[in-house]
Amino acid sequence: MSSGVIGVFDSGFGGLTVLKALMAQLPEARFVFLGDTARLPYGSKSQRTIARYAAESAQFLVEQQGAEFLVIACNTASALALDAIKESVTVPVLGVIEPGAAGAAKSSTSRDVMVIATEATVASHAYAAACRARGLRGVEKACPLLVPLVEEGWIDHPVTEEVVRIYLKELLQEARQSGQNPDTLVLGCTHYPLLRVVFDRVLLQLTGPSGVQVIDSAEATAAMAAEQIGARTGHAPGSHLPGAGPRIQCFATDSVEKFERLGSRFLGLPVGRVQLVDLGG
Amino acid sequence: MSSGVIGVFDSGFGGLTVLKALMAQLPEARFVFLGDTARLPYGSKSQRTIARYAAESAQFLVEQQGAEFLVIACNTASALALDAIKESVTVPVLGVIEPGAAGAAKSSTSRDVMVIATEATVASHAYAAACRARGLRGVEKACPLLVPLVEEGWIDHPVTEEVVRIYLKELLQEARQSGQNPDTLVLGCTHYPLLRVVFDRVLLQLTGPSGVQVIDSAEATAAMAAEQIGARTGHAPGSHLPGAGPRIQCFATDSVEKFERLGSRFLGLPVGRVQLVDLGG
Repeated sequence: MSSGVIGVFDSGFGGLTVLKALMAQLPEARFVFLGDTARLPYGSKSQRTIARYAAESAQFLVEQQGAEFLVIACNTASALALDAIKESVTVPVLGVIEPGAAGAAKSSTSRDVMVIATEATVASHAYAAACRARGLRGVEKACPLLVPLVEEGWIDHPVTEEVVRIYLKELLQEARQSGQNPDTLVLGCTHYPLLRVVFDRVLLQLTGPSGVQVIDSAEATAAMAAEQIGARTGHAPGSHLPGAGPRIQCFATDSVEKFERLGSRFLGLPVGRVQLVDLGG
Repeated sequence: MSSGVIGVFDSGFGGLTVLKALMAQLPEARFVFLGDTARLPYGSKSQRTIARYAAESAQFLVEQQGAEFLVIACNTASALALDAIKESVTVPVLGVIEPGAAGAAKSSTSRDVMVIATEATVASHAYAAACRARGLRGVEKACPLLVPLVEEGWIDHPVTEEVVRIYLKELLQEARQSGQNPDTLVLGCTHYPLLRVVFDRVLLQLTGPSGVQVIDSAEATAAMAAEQIGARTGHAPGSHLPGAGPRIQCFATDSVEKFERLGSRFLGLPVGRVQLVDLGG
């Protein structure tokens, strides 16, 4: 890893929560982030189209920006296009779904887990399959109101708490009706870490203090990326990556205004100037 | 108007509320509806791209489906692409914004109106300009949570009522702080008519029985379309349109599943089989 640049890709800017977690795990690494905002949402598009868009984005990060490790911080692309991305580049590629499921497997003692995500991610059943492969039983629920609530900035807000309560009550009920006793909740959408405090509070109300553990797939992905990079280089994660140049550089394929405005909320610090890039139609 | 077919275009299926209102106004007309679902949301795209998509869609309805009158049941396309659409076809074209503003001008005695819409429509300021052209003062507010709430099916739901109350309180406050005394609320999004009962109830609570009148731009557009068609043909609206063939035929450019599942809620009756059509990238 000569240049020590890690590429992070999302269809929008939600994946900045994954970048935030990566920056904490790899304090000396440099990052290039690409949000394919011109072509979102991926969730409503066909698998073939998503694979093409994601492969083009991955190639931009590797071939034009010198990324030597790729994190696919987009649940839809991770679910539907990870193989296509791996075929399109020569560097290691890590999606968000396997680390999320691995985190759940580590956390759960009942072996019953719950996954919340967007409609597209749930429809792919990628988390359910990854959980099953680890001997876990899982129930999944699409929570389509949570992304707009986060983007509206209603983070610690009574309406959001009520929506979370309704969704989690329904999900717990569904799990229990299937004879399951879930002790782990996987946040399967890059927007959801912003609502972490709300999830924790509502779960405490619904299931008590030893009830349900929350697995944030952004954090789980960052931890797994750090492990893999450490294993490849034989160095402690981050220590091999020189600090030359700016710490992060963000690119977007469409209007950068919303990215710059909302992005800092996801990243936890200013995203800086976002560069517009044209990847074609 | 030999074939008597009216084309209705939207980027998604929200415009089915306009089709519903048109069917009530023109009981003998036949309709072809196109939802450009593969390329939505239009709101995040550039004006040039929206104009190209909308013109292609309009040409499909006119040249391939024989539409002799076009209703653009999409606020974003009406705001940003109406001229481009008019140039691309030879039939009369009506958008949703002018009728909405005309309805507000008819309703308002204080000459102060409020408009709620999506972020993209508000950013275009098309309603504000159309209101100003009629001597009205207007305040606009983006209400980005309302479309997802409608699509989640939370129509007459306490969370939706609370969200509507928060938005309308903020909007009334903004209007009053600008020294305005609004007596009219324009629903500037095709999803909002489904929440009509919620708007009426919240406005009654906030402003009393003689407070604020709601103008549904879907209804206003249908009424204006009926007038224009009547004026063109010299017949009572609808009476010139033969009832041959199915009453409505819906087309979509992507996965028709969501369209068929949610569409009937917007149309108030089954949408029938939705045909997939490819308009290219």
